[in-house]
Amino acid sequence: MAAVGPDIMVRETVRLISSDKVEGTPVRRSNGERIGTIERVMIDKRGGRVAYAVMTFGGFLGIGEEYRALPWSVLRYDEDLDAYELNLTDAQLRSAPVSETGFYETGQTDRNWERQLHDYYRATPYW
Amino acid sequence: MAAVGPDIMVRETVRLISSDKVEGTPVRRSNGERIGTIERVMIDKRGGRVAYAVMTFGGFLGIGEEYRALPWSVLRYDEDLDAYELNLTDAQLRSAPVSETGFYETGQTDRNWERQLHDYYRATPYW
Repeated sequence: MAAVGPDIMVRETVRLISSDKVEGTPVRRSNGERIGTIERVMIDKRGGRVAYAVMTFGGFLGIGEEYRALPWSVLRYDEDLDAYELNLTDAQLRSAPVSETGFYETGQTDRNWERQLHDYYRATPYW
Repeated sequence: MAAVGPDIMVRETVRLISSDKVEGTPVRRSNGERIGTIERVMIDKRGGRVAYAVMTFGGFLGIGEEYRALPWSVLRYDEDLDAYELNLTDAQLRSAPVSETGFYETGQTDRNWERQLHDYYRATPYW
């Protein structure tokens, strides 16, 4: 008889949250304004740590949308907002570290960029 | 001008993989036999670490399917298989730690169960 554990179909517990629940969660300011949506998280293969979350930002009905990377520790879920709470202005988000096509495909690890990212959000690096 | 970084639309790099790419990836034995599919990963909210991956197992066309939790470190992607490689028999998987409805909803953290899980797969605990 196998050991009995937590219900594997539960997508959130006090301590854990499932990747497919994080995906699609909105990001809002405290006043309720919607900034964007979490699209996915990027996981460090070796250590199994979330490197950053990818959030949509700007645009209208999917047109002109941009993406921003957010350190995991920046994502604080707020029950009243039913969203991750992030109090950054559009200007602050526009000047946040962004990405450019093809950079990563060569296999560059680019820890420098991740350092900039975590610095920008005053987040403790995960590595 | 914002700092230029990796292409945020790239779902896999040498070092990172996106949650929505892990979801749906098959799990196979070295001989190509399909065991199941990764459904999602469960992330520790506080530290941003993957606690375990949830894999379907058994059943036919979705009927009678079960689920098994796998420590992240057990998932080794194999290019030839185009799948995560896992060399466990059906019997071994049947006796692997499973879950029971409702257990987690009370908010029990149940580190003991996670310990059993990691012991079973001889995986180093992530915590």
